[in-house]
This record gives sequence, structure tokens and C-alpha cells, in this order.
Amino acid sequence: MRRFDFIELAVMLATVVQWLVLATITGAIIGTGTSLFLHGLFFATDRTADVPLWLQTLLLPVGGLLNGLLLYYGYRANTGDLKDSIFAAVNTQSGRMPFRTILIKPIAAIITLGSGGSAGKEGPCSHIGASLASAVGQALRLNTELRLRIVACGVSAGFASVFGTPIAGAIYGVEVLAIGRVRHDFLLPAIVAGAASYHVSILWGVPYQYYQLPALPGFSETLFLKTTVLGVICGIVALVFVEFVYRTAWLSVHLRNRFKVWPPLMPLGGGVLLALLILIIPTDYLGLSLSLMDRALAGEPMPYFGFLWKSLLVAITIGSGFYGGIVTPQFVIGAVAGSAFAHLLGMDAMLGAAVGLTSVVAAASNTPIAAVLMGVELFGGSIGTVYIAGAAIAAYLMIGHRSIYPEQRLAYSKS
Amino acid sequence: MRRFDFIELAVMLATVVQWLVLATITGAIIGTGTSLFLHGLFFATDRTADVPLWLQTLLLPVGGLLNGLLLYYGYRANTGDLKDSIFAAVNTQSGRMPFRTILIKPIAAIITLGSGGSAGKEGPCSHIGASLASAVGQALRLNTELRLRIVACGVSAGFASVFGTPIAGAIYGVEVLAIGRVRHDFLLPAIVAGAASYHVSILWGVPYQYYQLPALPGFSETLFLKTTVLGVICGIVALVFVEFVYRTAWLSVHLRNRFKVWPPLMPLGGGVLLALLILIIPTDYLGLSLSLMDRALAGEPMPYFGFLWKSLLVAITIGSGFYGGIVTPQFVIGAVAGSAFAHLLGMDAMLGAAVGLTSVVAAASNTPIAAVLMGVELFGGSIGTVYIAGAAIAAYLMIGHRSIYPEQRLAYSKS
Repeated sequence: MRRFDFIELAVMLATVVQWLVLATITGAIIGTGTSLFLHGLFFATDRTADVPLWLQTLLLPVGGLLNGLLLYYGYRANTGDLKDSIFAAVNTQSGRMPFRTILIKPIAAIITLGSGGSAGKEGPCSHIGASLASAVGQALRLNTELRLRIVACGVSAGFASVFGTPIAGAIYGVEVLAIGRVRHDFLLPAIVAGAASYHVSILWGVPYQYYQLPALPGFSETLFLKTTVLGVICGIVALVFVEFVYRTAWLSVHLRNRFKVWPPLMPLGGGVLLALLILIIPTDYLGLSLSLMDRALAGEPMPYFGFLWKSLLVAITIGSGFYGGIVTPQFVIGAVAGSAFAHLLGMDAMLGAAVGLTSVVAAASNTPIAAVLMGVELFGGSIGTVYIAGAAIAAYLMIGHRSIYPEQRLAYSKS
Repeated sequence: MRRFDFIELAVMLATVVQWLVLATITGAIIGTGTSLFLHGLFFATDRTADVPLWLQTLLLPVGGLLNGLLLYYGYRANTGDLKDSIFAAVNTQSGRMPFRTILIKPIAAIITLGSGGSAGKEGPCSHIGASLASAVGQALRLNTELRLRIVACGVSAGFASVFGTPIAGAIYGVEVLAIGRVRHDFLLPAIVAGAASYHVSILWGVPYQYYQLPALPGFSETLFLKTTVLGVICGIVALVFVEFVYRTAWLSVHLRNRFKVWPPLMPLGGGVLLALLILIIPTDYLGLSLSLMDRALAGEPMPYFGFLWKSLLVAITIGSGFYGGIVTPQFVIGAVAGSAFAHLLGMDAMLGAAVGLTSVVAAASNTPIAAVLMGVELFGGSIGTVYIAGAAIAAYLMIGHRSIYPEQRLAYSKS
């Protein structure tokens, strides 16, 4: 009979205690950082939310130019060889982020969203999370393996405090790093940091919104198959979104090189284009578009082409050189498309919006498990989980090996 | 600019449609199979649930002998080279199960649980699922890769219909196949089959039990840290359970070889030992012990050593050569231990029982993600998920690289 391995037990206990302490402290620091950012963001967007159309068309190009100047001169100051990217930090930089440029992305996001650029708020939060975590890792002189985990848990803590979904945020942070694999050894740091960051953000007064889905009757196989079909549709919607973003970015680089445009002028041009487009596209699709998402989740009818408007505006915003997150737009696109196409399938619009939201995130970010848990945390309840899960996985397959994050590694093929 | 890849989109659509059809049919067949088994099991256990103690002490050795004879002569008839194991089917047998012996394990489980042996009901269900799925795969002449997936989805469908938790069951079936990895390409077949199997089981009148946890106040970091500590304790509880099962099985083989015991006599001896033990251990710990689990989840006080009694009885039952599942006992052990130790930490006993249940499953089976989703499906609600997740992951780490399934592959180290 083998002897009982007390050493492994001691090692595991030490690991758990280590991460309870380390990730709680890191999570609390990150929660403070993201709360500061979110309050700054809300301050800016509240000021510019209801400006008249003529002012909005002026704000967009001005915001674009400011953004362009900030990013251009900001990153010139970054003389090191580290990339300011969470994927690079985990996959190639051994958990190191450039610390001098930590404020550039958050400020750029506030300018982008404040001036009406169509983007998300979670990108800067995960960036703040990774940067602060990397700083903690360097301050404590952690070895490479621990630094990797602490940066991954920083990304998770950032996501956790954006939407008030600590578990989904934590698992998103782990799952997004590579396609087709969840690193189980990252999970404890991620969840502990996510919980701490979420709690600290509540204490700092960050508001979170949860949604009550209509009570569903007992399980129905028909409804399950319908929601899975809706997942397929939302997977294609996500694919369209990813292609829009990718192609616009490609075109933007191509134009810049072809006509030798001074880089800060590119987002200025993007801002002009956005200003022209909102003469026909409703201004709801600018900025975070959270009120649009809330209306979709409340069951209001949504247009079939809503997802195209949002995809187009986000693609131009991000592609031309504004800066912002690309997960919040997935929420909006998913809720709008899910609500619209649920109508086509004879489903409840609120359930459709919830299924759409989670499916588009599952597909565009390649994070099916985080998406299912996001459904649980945002919408509560047990009965809906099976519908959300079937749709999310179907959508995740439909998008193939594309990703909204070109830097995402492929760990395992989907087919 | 790269051209849009229509072929990949078509392949993915075909994949999704293929699995919607294939996994729904397979899941429905499996749901019928497991429902038949579960009704047979409930018929037997209802007859023997409240027998007087003297009769129970007789039933146990008789059940042991019957079990021994069935398994001994049953597997002699299995002349092929395929092992009757879900792990072997997926990991080494390219998705093939021996079909001639499909009834042995279900009948053995009914004898085991009907005579009072302490074990679970999900093992035979996952076995039925894998066997029927393998038969479908062979009937449709699927290639190796598809046969693998269909057998994995059979395991999932089996689990889904045991506890009425389609998503947790589906993901358990995928996660249990290897430590540290969830195969994303197995997820869609698993979830579709799980939903179909669950729905068919409801139609066949299989009863399921869900639990209402007390409403928790807003998120509390203190409670999160307390539940994580409870997870650490439950990880050690799971470790004790796994060691009991492993060591008893080892001792049983050792005794059988040392004294050249005729194999069918081993469970007879196990039955005698169990009959002696229930003179001091309450009979609640025999069989499935679901009423004990229900009482723990309803907030009734539980003894600190309850998990030891259950672990001991299960270890003797399984180790001596009865047959039954080993996940239901994890539920019972977890709920009893969680409730008892919650008291020690000044936590609500019902929350403790729920956290304990999911943590012990996460640890003993190495399935942290399925365990979290099991918490969602059994207990509903969003606010509790973060507590359950922290505890489940901590427990999963504490048990180290042990597993209740010695055949589980190690995909990635935990540390």
C-alpha cells in the first residue's frame, strides 16, 4: 500500500492559503483601481449622454483627435520592449506589463466613450487589473510562474468588477487567454481576486444591474432546441461582428500606409465618419449602449438590423484608432439580436435577449463556460441555465476559429 | 485582406446540426434506459427501506453473495477484450464498450442498494449511457473520433438524468474524463444529449429534488473567505473519503490473494462486516442516504463524524466487491460535513451543506466546474454561486492529484 503523502497535502494547503492572501490583496487593489476608472467614466458619459445631435457630431471628431494624440505620444514614451497587452503579458512576457503607460488606456477609454465612440468599458478594466497585478508581482519579487498567475488573476479581477459578475468575470479572465482550454490552476487566484475586487467595488459605490427573467415553466425539449437554434443565429451574428472589426482595422491600416496619414489623424477621420453615420443610425448605438441592452432585456421589441448598426459603429470606432473594450458591445449586440430573432422563432423576447447576450459573448470571445456563468450571475435562476448553455456552446462552435482577440492562442481545435 | 472562409462556416453549421440530431436521439435513448433502471432501483429500495434491523443484517451478506456471483459469472461470459469502463471506453477503447455485459452493472447496483450496501446510483447510469451510446455509434458506423464523442456524450446524458441537473451532469461527464481539462469539443454533444435525456426521464416519471437555499444578504467578503475555508475542510473530507475507498480496495485484493478466497465470497464478507457495523452506525448511512442529505440541506444539525461513517460504509461496500456509484456518496458526505463544519465557522447550516456538497464533488471527482454548475442547478440563485465556486476550487486543490477514479487521466498538474 502506498504511504499517505503528507507533503502534497501541505503543499496544497500552502498554495490555497498563499492565494487566499495574495489574490485577496491584489483583488482589493484592482477593485479600487477599476472603481476609480468607472467613476471617471460615468462622470464623463453622464455629461455627454444627452447632448444635442449637432454637438454630438462635433464631439466625435474632437474625441478622435484627442485619442489619436494621446495614444501616439503616450506610447512613444514607452521605451521598453514590453507590449501593453494582457495576452502578451500572460503568453509571452512572463506576467510583466509596462507600468509607465498604465494610465493611457483608461484615459483613452474615457475620451472614446465620453465623446460617443462605440465601445466597451471592460477592456480598460482588465488592463488596469493586469497592470496593477503585474506591479504587485514585481514588488513582491514573485517567480515567473507565480507572476503569470497573479497577472491572470488581475485580468479576472478587472472583469469581475465591471459587470458585478465575480465568477463569470473570473472565469472569463482565465478562459479568454486561449481558445479551447480553461487552466484549472488559474481558477482559485482568479475567483478569490474576483470576489475581493467585486466587494471593494461595491464599497466604492460602483452600481451594478441584475435582471429578472420571466419564470419559465418546467423544462421543455422544444424550447431547448429553439434556443439552440437561436444560439446558431447568434453565433453568426458574432461572426459578422468579428469580421466587421477585423476588416475595418485592416482597411484602416491599409489606408494609413497607402496615404501616409499621420496616425493621430486616423481616429479624427473615424470620428467624422461616425458623425455622418449617426445622421441615419440612432445615437443609442453610440457609447456603451447599455440603455439599449436594458430595453432588450426588459422585453421591448428590437430591430433585426440593430446588431449590424452596433457592429458597424464599434468596428469604425476601434478600427480607426479610438480605444475601448470589445466585450460590452458583445453584450449589446447579443441582447438586441437575441430579442429580435427570438420573435422570429416564436420565443419570449426577454429570454431571447438573455440567450443572445450570453451566446454572442461565448462565440466572439471564445469563452463558453464564462458565458454560461455570466447568464447565471446576471439572470439568476436555475431553469434557464440549460437553455443558455445549449445556445452558448452552439454559438461558440459556429464562429469557428475566429476571435475578437487576434492574440488569443489556439489551445485546442474545436472540431 | 484574407477572404471570408465560407467552408469553415458550413463545416461548423453541419457539425452543430449533426450533433443536434445525433445527440438528441442518443440522449432520448439513454434517458429511457436510465429511467428504467431508476424505476427498478426505486422499486427495490422502497421494499427494503424500512426493514427491521435483524432483517437488514441478514440482507447485507445475502446481497453481497448475490452480487459476488453475478459479477463473477457475468464477466466470465464477457469473452472480448473490451473493458466495461467509461474511462477505458474514451481513453483507450476508441469509444467502444462491451455490449453483452450491459445489464450486469445496473442489476448489481440494484442488488447492492436494495440490500443496504452504501453506494450511489449515478455509476450505473453513466455506464448505461456509455454502453447505449457506444451501441448507437457502432450501429451508425461512426468513425473513431465521432464514436469517442458520442460515448462521452452518453456518459454526460447518464449523469444528467440521475440528479435532474442537465448542464452539471453534461459537464461532469466531460470534465471527469481527465484531471485539469474540459474538452470544449465534447461540450455541445454532452449538453444536447443531457437535455434530451433529462426531458425523457421527466416524461418517464423519474422524480427530481431541488433545494431552496435561504436568501443571502448582499455579497460579503467575510462570508466568501469563510466558505472558502469550509471548502478547504471539505477538500480534506473528500481526501479522507478517497483514501478510505482506495485503502479498503487494496486491503480487499490483498486479503483475497493472501488467503486465496473465491471472489464471490468477498462481498459476502463485506456484507457481514457492514451488518456488524450498523449495530453502532445508524442505518441512515446505508444505501443512497438521500434522506440524510435532504435533512442536512434542510438545516438539521449533523454530527461532525457523519462523513467518516459514510466514508467507511461506502469503502467497505465498494472495496469488498459490491457494485454502485461513488458520486451520490460524495453528495451525502459533503452535505453532512458541510453542515457540521459550518456550525464551527458560525455559518448558516443550509449554506454549509450546499457548499459542502459541491466542494466534496469538486474535489473527489476533480470536477470543479461541473460542481459549481451543480450548485446552480440544485440550489438555483445567483448570489450563492460565488461562495460555492470559491469553496469548490479550494477543495479541488486540497485533494491534490488523488481521485476517486483511479482511471482518471492527468491532463494538467494542479500546481
